[in-house]
This record gives sequence, structure tokens and C-alpha cells, in this order.
Amino acid sequence: MKTKTAPMGWNSWDCYGAGVTEEIVRKNGEYMAKHLKKYGYDIITVDIQWSSLVATGHAYTPFDDLCMDGYSRLIPAENRFPSSAGGKGFKPLADYIHSLGLKFGIHIMRGIPRRAAHAHTPILGTGVTADKIANYDSTCFWNSDMYGVKPEAPGAREYYESIFALYAQWGVDFIKIDDICRELPRFEEELILISDCLKNCGRDIIFSLSPGPAVLEKSELYKQVADMWRITDDFWDRWDLLYNMFERCEKWSVHTGAGNWPDCDMLPVGALNQDEDPDCRTCFTKDEQITMMNLWCIFRSPLIIGGELTKTDDFTLSLLTNENVLRMHSLSRHAHQVWRRKVKGVECALWTAICAGGGQYAGVFNLGEESVECEIPLGDLELEGSKDMLELWSNEASRAQDKIMVNIRPHASAAFLITE
Amino acid sequence: MKTKTAPMGWNSWDCYGAGVTEEIVRKNGEYMAKHLKKYGYDIITVDIQWSSLVATGHAYTPFDDLCMDGYSRLIPAENRFPSSAGGKGFKPLADYIHSLGLKFGIHIMRGIPRRAAHAHTPILGTGVTADKIANYDSTCFWNSDMYGVKPEAPGAREYYESIFALYAQWGVDFIKIDDICRELPRFEEELILISDCLKNCGRDIIFSLSPGPAVLEKSELYKQVADMWRITDDFWDRWDLLYNMFERCEKWSVHTGAGNWPDCDMLPVGALNQDEDPDCRTCFTKDEQITMMNLWCIFRSPLIIGGELTKTDDFTLSLLTNENVLRMHSLSRHAHQVWRRKVKGVECALWTAICAGGGQYAGVFNLGEESVECEIPLGDLELEGSKDMLELWSNEASRAQDKIMVNIRPHASAAFLITE
Amino acid sequence: MKTKTAPMGWNSWDCYGAGVTEEIVRKNGEYMAKHLKKYGYDIITVDIQWSSLVATGHAYTPFDDLCMDGYSRLIPAENRFPSSAGGKGFKPLADYIHSLGLKFGIHIMRGIPRRAAHAHTPILGTGVTADKIANYDSTCFWNSDMYGVKPEAPGAREYYESIFALYAQWGVDFIKIDDICRELPRFEEELILISDCLKNCGRDIIFSLSPGPAVLEKSELYKQVADMWRITDDFWDRWDLLYNMFERCEKWSVHTGAGNWPDCDMLPVGALNQDEDPDCRTCFTKDEQITMMNLWCIFRSPLIIGGELTKTDDFTLSLLTNENVLRMHSLSRHAHQVWRRKVKGVECALWTAICAGGGQYAGVFNLGEESVECEIPLGDLELEGSKDMLELWSNEASRAQDKIMVNIRPHASAAFLITE
Amino acid sequence: MKTKTAPMGWNSWDCYGAGVTEEIVRKNGEYMAKHLKKYGYDIITVDIQWSSLVATGHAYTPFDDLCMDGYSRLIPAENRFPSSAGGKGFKPLADYIHSLGLKFGIHIMRGIPRRAAHAHTPILGTGVTADKIANYDSTCFWNSDMYGVKPEAPGAREYYESIFALYAQWGVDFIKIDDICRELPRFEEELILISDCLKNCGRDIIFSLSPGPAVLEKSELYKQVADMWRITDDFWDRWDLLYNMFERCEKWSVHTGAGNWPDCDMLPVGALNQDEDPDCRTCFTKDEQITMMNLWCIFRSPLIIGGELTKTDDFTLSLLTNENVLRMHSLSRHAHQVWRRKVKGVECALWTAICAGGGQYAGVFNLGEESVECEIPLGDLELEGSKDMLELWSNEASRAQDKIMVNIRPHASAAFLITE
Repeated sequence: MKTKTAPMGWNSWDCYGAGVTEEIVRKNGEYMAKHLKKYGYDIITVDIQWSSLVATGHAYTPFDDLCMDGYSRLIPAENRFPSSAGGKGFKPLADYIHSLGLKFGIHIMRGIPRRAAHAHTPILGTGVTADKIANYDSTCFWNSDMYGVKPEAPGAREYYESIFALYAQWGVDFIKIDDICRELPRFEEELILISDCLKNCGRDIIFSLSPGPAVLEKSELYKQVADMWRITDDFWDRWDLLYNMFERCEKWSVHTGAGNWPDCDMLPVGALNQDEDPDCRTCFTKDEQITMMNLWCIFRSPLIIGGELTKTDDFTLSLLTNENVLRMHSLSRHAHQVWRRKVKGVECALWTAICAGGGQYAGVFNLGEESVECEIPLGDLELEGSKDMLELWSNEASRAQDKIMVNIRPHASAAFLITE
Repeated sequence: MKTKTAPMGWNSWDCYGAGVTEEIVRKNGEYMAKHLKKYGYDIITVDIQWSSLVATGHAYTPFDDLCMDGYSRLIPAENRFPSSAGGKGFKPLADYIHSLGLKFGIHIMRGIPRRAAHAHTPILGTGVTADKIANYDSTCFWNSDMYGVKPEAPGAREYYESIFALYAQWGVDFIKIDDICRELPRFEEELILISDCLKNCGRDIIFSLSPGPAVLEKSELYKQVADMWRITDDFWDRWDLLYNMFERCEKWSVHTGAGNWPDCDMLPVGALNQDEDPDCRTCFTKDEQITMMNLWCIFRSPLIIGGELTKTDDFTLSLLTNENVLRMHSLSRHAHQVWRRKVKGVECALWTAICAGGGQYAGVFNLGEESVECEIPLGDLELEGSKDMLELWSNEASRAQDKIMVNIRPHASAAFLITE
Repeated sequence: MKTKTAPMGWNSWDCYGAGVTEEIVRKNGEYMAKHLKKYGYDIITVDIQWSSLVATGHAYTPFDDLCMDGYSRLIPAENRFPSSAGGKGFKPLADYIHSLGLKFGIHIMRGIPRRAAHAHTPILGTGVTADKIANYDSTCFWNSDMYGVKPEAPGAREYYESIFALYAQWGVDFIKIDDICRELPRFEEELILISDCLKNCGRDIIFSLSPGPAVLEKSELYKQVADMWRITDDFWDRWDLLYNMFERCEKWSVHTGAGNWPDCDMLPVGALNQDEDPDCRTCFTKDEQITMMNLWCIFRSPLIIGGELTKTDDFTLSLLTNENVLRMHSLSRHAHQVWRRKVKGVECALWTAICAGGGQYAGVFNLGEESVECEIPLGDLELEGSKDMLELWSNEASRAQDKIMVNIRPHASAAFLITE
Repeated sequence: MKTKTAPMGWNSWDCYGAGVTEEIVRKNGEYMAKHLKKYGYDIITVDIQWSSLVATGHAYTPFDDLCMDGYSRLIPAENRFPSSAGGKGFKPLADYIHSLGLKFGIHIMRGIPRRAAHAHTPILGTGVTADKIANYDSTCFWNSDMYGVKPEAPGAREYYESIFALYAQWGVDFIKIDDICRELPRFEEELILISDCLKNCGRDIIFSLSPGPAVLEKSELYKQVADMWRITDDFWDRWDLLYNMFERCEKWSVHTGAGNWPDCDMLPVGALNQDEDPDCRTCFTKDEQITMMNLWCIFRSPLIIGGELTKTDDFTLSLLTNENVLRMHSLSRHAHQVWRRKVKGVECALWTAICAGGGQYAGVFNLGEESVECEIPLGDLELEGSKDMLELWSNEASRAQDKIMVNIRPHASAAFLITE
């Protein structure tokens, strides 16, 4: 379901791992509705292993006996999602999220539960059992829940149709599928089958692929099967990961837009890892967080908040709701890196994009370890003469003559809207 | 258990796949005792999936519910091995094979039954269950029975000790382990653990690794953990596979002997694929079978017969029991390929070996598609002058002066013992 | 010498190989001054081996005794460039080209003449001889004229300074250097040395690197040392080469502009290979030539005409001087491929770019072998609603509602300027 | 010219590099005739650049103007080889070496002098000049003397025939050709052409290929074109190089014998690098030198002495003339490594070979850094019971019962002849 702008929302992984509960989800939804919805954030997603009775955090239990219905389909664990009792699945929770004016998302794994294959349980609408469509050698190296499905096996299509029919009936608006994005061409046929089944499920659902790094040579395929796809392995609040994202974004920049959203992963801001420590907060400095937002927004990555929303502090809220920057996220076009080089011995990068509302964006990033006074000829942006400049975070207006002068701290950045 | 000469015996795979039964095994044992034992053949091996209630031939049933005891250990399927009823396992059958003066062998797969991991069944002598030692991402790409074991997990060593204790108690003399030989260094630690446990099980057991091709760089490791190891993927009665074996043997020749037996796989002779067609016979020509025997014997590969023994025809029996050739199998030393080149436009290979009983062997192989008159200078064997020659198959004696002259048909070969 | 728009001109290789003469150069200059200069074409370049007394066409003579001055520097062959007699070099010819209001360009090879190394001739301003700076193992695999120079050797910098001083004195405005562009990182240090010497020669000279394909990972280096660099091996009038250029352009698109000109190579149009056949004309169809121009211009490749100008026919002239298209070449910004996929079974590509003069360009290319009716949602260009459309070649104006409809022949294309 | 045993002799490189003179050669020949010839050493070889007027040691002069005759053929530099004056070439020196009862060898480079190509000098018996057969892109990365020859060019065969005719006329018995051995398949066709021409030159000449490492996959080719070929890059008196030789020998062992001599390179013993320091002596310890001899001799490498013979000290002479060890060099058959593993924590290797005179050799090598008491079961040699043992260096006889016990210092070794 192609969207005009990159999806924005919240996901439970960064703060709760596999152990999120219904109550937490509801509270985060309520916060979003009250504080973030007006800025465009509108998706609440329950991440991995909502079928587990025992999951409590970021670690997985091998050979966990996940909850299934009678047709080899995973269903929410009632002890963690009480409203799902009585076979109602996620419908009551989705209804509640919808009542807040938000969208409801879930995480799924590629494949069919290993439990189902070993128990020979049926596939809905077929005479086939799970062991007939499960591929015993198609495993995920970091999680034991599922076997991949043999795309050509009788019953395979019906299985995937049956799960998406269930999710549609629940009212799901967003699906993040895991163990598939970077595994091309290995699981390409299975991905195409899944995408086909989802498109025909009768409900508009945003489709998000994980984990990255996505395979650049397959960019056209991603565009055809999905709405967003991860260009990185799990992103966390570490500078080296943010530093590396610049190269990833450089390579994927020409594939962004028109409903296609290469995905830099969740924003690890605010209160993270709540399963381990309620006092845990992001390790990123404020400068790094602004650098992250500048990159995510000029590049137009999806903006999926990773922190526990109810613990959002003032800085984090201001970070996530800066209107100049969110306008760049919405109006940036044709973004790309102009150069990346040493400036006075300090590694810097210059990005630019057209603003669909008029003017041109420039992002200046200090990727090095010392402050630097950058002097950027307007010619590097293919501009010349005298221009009006607005720095998006400080809201400072200035006039540039032939060049931009900006002093940037290490790991910090500046973003400008340049107009006549 | 290092042996002075390469193991000789019979294996059920080539004729029955996974579907052999106790009765068949007994009858093949009886035939061996009567007709082959005096030539050195003395091992009767039950190949893969003797725990399956449903296996009938060369195909595997995915997610087959294999028979287990209460400690996650596979046991024979009673419907196929009736004497195992009442928890007696293979002991009665092994006893019978022993009573014939023969050794009893079984096939096992690396790892622990997937069933056990998913059912969380116990490991003997530990407080641990199978799911704790099973590696959910360690699968065999062609069979769904097992998960690999995490070598460092508490309970892993006890599991392997427990299965070898069981096999020793049954009276097993030979174990062919599958899904491990070519998978180095991936499963190297697991292989070392398994070998350690086997060596300490209290019974001398010949240890055979499958499937190939073994990893040449790991030759020293194979010598330390096993008695024989497959240097090829499954070998069948096709010329291209036999042709390719020459290069495999060339590379492994210096690693043969002193209890180390790089293994060219079963001899697909006589009545094969009996599960599919009782009339099936080897597709090899007689010349090709002799070429195979010449190569296997000068190289000293294990000689494991693949055909249903009770249907052995006269030619096959003569092939398997030629005393000159079996003497070469026993006495060949320092075998290696001297050259492989076009002789008058026909691809030929010359092998040589010292005879521990005196003299020197020479094998001349026509690997091409036309007959060729080979003239081989004795100098190629680092001999000179006048020599006595005995061709091993024809028993023809002759006198060579400076060179060997021999006319060889396509795919055929000659083997000589050369003495003063 | 960074230029605001991509260089435009003519080069002698496609029509004369290594065998061009002064008279031909003059006549092509005269044609350009009269017919092409007003459209922006203003560079006349003498390609490879102008020092050869014997070169007559596209083949090279191994170990050709090229003309040198007393300082190991190549000079024009007087029999082919009479005005160079008396040690005047290319100055008289450059003066003439300048008198036409045009720029004068020459081709050079990386390195120092092999003749000089073997004759131990001096380097200007040093006590060093050529053999001391020549790298005997740094050869060009397709031409025997030169040895590479050891960048760190005493005298190496002086040699390169001495040749650029000579070219500056001649009045050279454009240098195409060969045997270096794709050979990174092998010759990276030599390239940096050459670029340094050129920048300090006292004259603004456009610097062009050959042959391609350039190394994508070295994009930042190319930007720092050169003005244009070949992204392809020699391009000729064959569809497969044009077809492949789409992928090359896709990868290099974000590196185009702001004085950096990834180069798709000469336009093989009009009268080619005049050394072999005066009647030779391009093998491209008209549709293919328009497709080539659309790609070169939206991508902003340099436009260097390959055909003998004095034989330019009406179609070719119209192709090279279409004002809409040349405006796109000048005003295209942020060009990139949107997608490349099967449309109704026919492989198509969609490119877009911002027009610096207002509006947005779209190029629709049929890369397949059948005609196709393309229906392109404006959303693919991140536009919506109703738009004015101008097709650049036909000059047809139309109004698009939500989508562009265009029928395209095989190998053909359409280019639109889209405005409100 | 296939030889029954591996060639033995002396080569000037290790002690004089490219700078040896006639006088030195004569004196080394005289020493060999007097002290070494009776042990089998009988080849005196003048190594690289005997055509250079200026060479004095191990460094090369780039673009050196080597002495040539009128047919593009290199000839000795008269200032260094006075007897060659008047166009007599090496004939007088070869005659003298022959008069001592020895063979005369020379080094050559693959190809034709670059000087000849650039000067367009003629090829004997053809109308062709050197530039027509020289391949301008076939260079040697460490020496600038030659261009490779295009094997298919008219005149190429005649050139190689012409140089071998000259060498045959001089009385050359041994040719070491450089820049070709490891460069397969790149120069394979040129190698085959050279070998053909040499075989047809009318004189029996031993043909030696340099430098290594030779390409194992091309073993059959080496056997057909040459007598010996280097399996290593230049070998010097450093333990790491000797250590690495064990793996090289392991791989090549089955290709040794019957006139084929994989070559471990010169023995860097005694007085080396005399061009730099007359007092220079080998850096190998005595143990290492014995280890080297044990490996070279059981493997049957050519034995080419690298030190200045006239300065041979007593130990070195005893090393080179041990009759037990030279007998192993002559009579070793089917040598190969049995194992290489940690023995009590110390890396050791066991080699064995058959003795053509009766019995079996065993070499025990300590490749580690601590002394070790090795206990080697006779079974590792496929022997059993009680055996007579003779240690070759100490001449100590003993009786082994089931095993060999030997204490070995680091880098040291023992070699035994085992008989009944």
C-alpha cells in the first residue's frame, strides 16, 4: 500500500524486545494520540513473539511453544494480550488503537511455526498439513520459531492467504515481516508469494521488510513487493552505526520516494531497553540525535520511534516534533550526497535535496572527532550568488553570498533550507 | 579404532535406501558369512533411518516421527526390526551377526532428533532437556531428522556419551556418521566432541564419516578423529562419477594407510535399488567395474559392497573376490598417480604403488573413449631393464624389457605386479 | 578547471583514429565555429598519437618511434601537423582554433615515452634521465608508447610539470589523458601527481580521464583530480553498448554536476571511421540516437561529437542542436533513474530530474524489442493532479491528468518537461 | 633431458647475484671438480644478466643496455667474461668447465631483449625484426631486460630456435629460464614453444624453470616441458622459508621422480652474498641445515649449492657430502609426508619413503620451538615388530621394537633407514 510520505510511528522492540504487553501498547497509543499524532506519527506496532507465553525481553527462548490456532497460525498469547482471549486475536486491541485515530501494526516472521510442522497441523481450506509446506532446511539463524515455506508446495499459497485474511479481519494496518529482507535471492520466491498474498487480502496494509542490510542489486524487487525495507541490520544508539548509515543512505538515496522507503530502522531515542532497566535512556548525545534526524529526514527514511513514549522527555519530544525538520521529511525530493571528504582534516559530508515546497535543502554533517569551520561554495549545490538561508533546528535566518559558512561540532550537523 | 587394512563389508543403502528390514540384513549377513568372509569382507551395516516406521526406500519423509527411547535417543523401529521389541534395540540383531563371525554396523546422523528438541525430552544422566543442547540453526539440507548439538552446551557431551554407551551395549562394531564429513570447519567442534565420546565408550568401534567430498586441508583432523572418511559425494554406477574419482584419489593418495582410509564410497555392483525394482542391476560395464576395483584397491579405499548380496551373480562374485586384486588392496603401499595425460590422443592415467610383499604395482587406466595401445617406459615407474610382470585379472605372466606394452579398451584398465 | 556545465565539443578518434592531420582538425574547427558553437560546442580535440609519423587510422604500430623533443617530451609529427615545424609544437594550430572562438584539446598517454627510457634522454630542469623515472613494469595493455612514471622518483614531478608547461605554452585548453581512469587504485598515486602538476601549470585546462569504466568506489577521488572521467570503455554505435549505458548512468547519476562530469564517451554519430571508408555512417537508428541524446543530456554527460563534422547531415545536425534537449543538458539537476522494469512485458526505464529553470524532466526509455504503450502514474515522479507536458523532440504540448501516456517504439524514448 | 636422479651442482646467484665473473666461475668449477664431483655435483651455472656490462651484485639496473649480437640475441659481457671476446660467446668457458669433467649451465630470461624491440633488430633466418615478435605488454615485474614473445607471431619460433642453437653451439648443458614458472597459465603457450625449440636444438640440455611457486594444477605440463621447476619463490637462509617448504614439498611429493624434479631452490649454505660482504655466511644453524638436507634429499629436490665454493668450511663440506644422505637423495622413492601434528605440544612432521636399495626411510622433523621426545609407532610407517634402524647423520645403528624413540631439538631432525 504505497504511501505518499514515509511511514511514521512507534515500535515496541527497542524498549521491550519480545516482551511487550497489551497494557504497554495501549498506553503508548494513548501518548501518541495525544502528543505525536498531529505531527504525523500514527502507527503503533507490536514487535516479535506476541505468541509467546514466556517472552519477557530481548532474548528468545529456543523451541518456544508459541500459541497457535487450529490452522497452524500464530495467535496472541492470552497471558500478555488479555483482550485476545476467546479467539478474538488482535481485533480488540486494533479496535482500540483505531479508536485513538491511529493505525495498528504487527511483526511476523517469514514461514510457518516449526511446532506446526512437527505436529502435522492443518492448513486452512486445504487437505494439507504444515509438514507438507514447511521447508526443513529454511531456518532463521537467530530465532527458532519458524520454518520457511516451500513456495511451490500445494498449500503454501493458502497458508499465507490464511494468515493475511486473519490479520485483515483483526484490522491490522501495518506488517513488519522479519527474516527475509537481506536474504535475497535465497528467499526471493517466498517473498514474492507473501507479497502477492498480502496484496490480495482485501485490506490496505503497509508492508515493511526486515532485517537489513537490503541487497542493493534487488532494489527494483523491493519496490514491487514492499513499501519499506531495512537497509541496515538492527540500528542502536551507537555512533559507529550512525556513522555507517551515511554510506548506506548514499547508496539507497536514488531509490527513495514515490511510495518506496528504504528504512534506516527505528530511532533509538528516549527510554530504551525497559525490560532490563526502567532508567535506561539513549546513549546518543543531543548532537548525534539531531544528526540522525537530519539524515533520516533529508533521506526520507520511515520515522519509527523506538523509546517508551510515556517516558518521553522534553528534548526528545522537541527532537521528534521539529516542524521544519518534519517538513523536510515530507518535502525532500531527489536527495543525495554531494560529497564526503576531509574538510580541514575533518571528515564531513554534504547532502542536498530539492524542497517540493520551493527551495533546496542542504545538510552538512561533521563525521569526525573535531569541530570544524565548514565553508561550502554554493557552487557545490549548483547554486550561485546571494541566497536566503534558514537553519532548521535553530530557526536562524541568514544570507549566504557565494558560500555557506558553518561551524560544526564533532558528530553534529546543520540543515538549511535555501531560497532566493 | 585404527585397522591395519581398509575395512571391507556391505551396506544396505545402495540396494534398499532407508527401507531395509531385519530380515534382509540377516540374509545378507548369512550370504557374507558363507561366500565373502574368507576374502576379508566382514562388516554388515544398516544404513540411515532405522528408526523410521514408514521409510521404504531411498526417499525421506520430512518431519518423520522417528522412534526414540525416553532419553532422546533413536531406537530401531519395531515394525521393521522385530527383534528390537521390548527395548532390546539392535542387540539381538548384532548378536546374530556376531554369531556368523561378522561385525555389525549402523548409520547415524549428526545431532539430536528434532522431535526431542520440540518435545523437550530429557538427556540421560542430566537435568537438561533436548531443547537446551539442540542448535536450531544447525540443520542438514537433505534430511529433517536432526538438529546439530551445541558442543559447548551443558548436556551436549552427556548426550553423545549416552548414545555411544547404548550402541556399545548393543554390540555395534562400526558406525557411519552422516552430515558431518564435508561440513568442515562448520561442524568441526561437534565432530571432535563426537569422536572423543566414541573413543571413550568402552568398545572398539570403526568410525566412518559421510558424506564427502572431505575437505583436503583438514586431512590431519580426519586422521585424528576417524578411521575412514568419504572423499566423494554419493557414488553411483555412472562413468562420470568413476572418472572423477581419479582426481579425488590423486589428491588423497598420500593420506592413505596406517589406519587412515579415505573412502571412495560403496561399490555399486550387482543388484541395486531393490526398493524400486527387484530386477535392477548395476549400469557399469564389466570393464568399468574392473577399473573401479583396480582404483579402489591400489588406493586402498574401504571396500563396502552396495548390492543385495543374495542376488550376487558370478561375474560380480569374481569381481569382489579376485585374490590378486584383494592382495593389492592389502599390500599396496605409497600408492600415487604417476601421470595423467593423452596417450595417442586418448586420456590415460598411470598409477603405481609398492607391494609390501615385494615388487611394485602399476595400474594403467584408459579414461578415454577409444581403445589405445599404451607403451609405458619402465622409467616412468623408476625401474629399468627386464622385469617379470603379472596382470592381476588375467593372471597372465610376461617379461617386460624397458617398457610395458598393453592394449586397453575405453574405460578399461590393467593392473600389474612387477618383480625382478 | 571546474565548469558549470558539462563540456561540449569534437574529438578526432571516432572518425580518424590515431591518424588525424592538421588540415582535418582545422576544417572541423571551422565547421564547429560556423554551425555548432552557438549551441555550446566549443572544444576541438586531437586524439591519440599525434607524435607518430606513421599512424594512419585506428590501429597502433607497436614500438612506434614517436617524435620527442630533447627533454623526453612528445611533440607533434611534422609530416602530419606542418605548422608544428621548427619546434613550435601545437601552438600555431591552437592559435588558429582560438581564432575561431574555440578551445583546443589534445590527448596524452599516462607516462613517459619508452623510447626516452631506453635512450636515457634527459628530463627538463633535472640531472635525471628518463630511465630513472620510468617504471618498466607499468605498461598499457593496448599500446606500447609509454612507460608509467614512478611517482616518488626524483624527477617524476619535474617531468609532468615540464609537459604541462609545454602544453600551456602551446595554448592547450583541454587534456584527455589515457590509460589511467579505470586503473585505480593501481595508478592512483601517479594520477594524483599528474593532477597536481596540471593544476599548477598556470593555465586553466579541462582535465578528462580515459578509458572507463571508472571505479565507482573512487568517485570522490575523481571529483578531486579531474573534471570528467569515462564511466565506460570505448563507446561505439552498437545497441548493446547503449543499452548497458543505462546501468552505468544509474550508478553514477548522484556524482554528476557541480563541475563533476561522469562521461559516457563520444557520440558516435554522422560520418565515422573515415580512415577506413569515407562513406561510413553511424549504425545507430534515428530512434537510438535520440535515446542516446536523451540519456546523455538528462544525465549531463559531456557531449563530444565523434563524427567528421564537415559531413554532418541534416538529421545529425538537428540531433545535436535541439534546443529543448540542450537546455535539459544545461539545466538538469538531481537526475536519477526512478525505475527500470518490465512494462507489459517490455523492459523500460523511467528517469527524472529537476529543471533548474522550473519544472521537472521525465525520460521514458523503451529498452526492449517491441513497441509499448506506457502509462506512467505522475506519482512515480512524486507529482499529482494535472500538469503541463512538453515533449522535447516533437515540441508537442499536452496536459497530463494523474498519469503520462506515451507510445514508444523499441530502442526509442520520449523526454518531457513537466510544469504546472 | 630427463635425468635418473635430481640434478646437483652450483649456481652463482646466492653468492654473487647478477655480478659473477668468468674468473669466479672457473674457480668454483675447479673446486667442484676436486671436492664435490665424486659425490655427484657436476653442474656449474652462471646466473642472471651475464650480458650486463655494469651488473655487480643482487640489484638490477633498469633499462640496462645488455650486450647483443646482430640477431637480437644476448651475448656475454666481454668485460666480465673475457674469453667470450671476438664473438666466441660462452664456448671457451664451457669448454673449460667440460675439461674439468663438469657440465656448464646458464640462466636466461623468457623473451627477447627490450633493446632489440626498440631498435628493430633482425631475427636470424627471417625477414622479421624484434619489434614484430615482442609483446609490449608481456613484462617481468622485477626486471626490465626483456619483453615476452608472442608465440604465434611469424619469427617467434625462429627466434627461440636461434638462441638455443647458439647455446648448443657454445656447449651449454643446463638452462635455467626465469620469469615463467609461476606465471601459468598466462605464459603457457610461450613456455610450450620454448620447450619445443629447446628439445629440437640438437643437444641434450637440462631445462630448469624459475621462479616459483609453480602452479600445482599444472603439474602434468611441467613434466612434459621441463626437467625441474621451482616450487617456491627465492629461498634464503631464513627459518620461516624452510618451515614453509614442508607444505610445498607435501603437495609436490607425488610429482617427484622419473625425471621430474620439483625444485626447492638453491641451498643457501656457506659463503653467501659475496658481492656485499666477503665475510657473509649462512644464517641457518647447523640443525637447520641438516633439516634442510633431510627434506631436500628424501623429497629428491635438485641440490644446487648457493655458496662460494672456494670458501667452503668443514661443516658445510660434510653437510653436502654425507654419503648416507646423498644415497637417500638417489634412492628415495614414493616419498610423502605421513603426518604433521603436535607431539606433546610441539609441531612435528613425519616423512617416509621407500629405499630403492632395500628398506624404508623415515624423516622426523621438529618444526617447533622446543625440544621434544618423539615416540613414533612403527605402525605409522605401516611396519611392525622389530626393525634395524640407521640414523643417517650420526651413523648410529639401533633396534626398534614397535616404535621409534628420538629426541629432537627445535628446527632439528633425524633421518633413518629402516631394514629388517
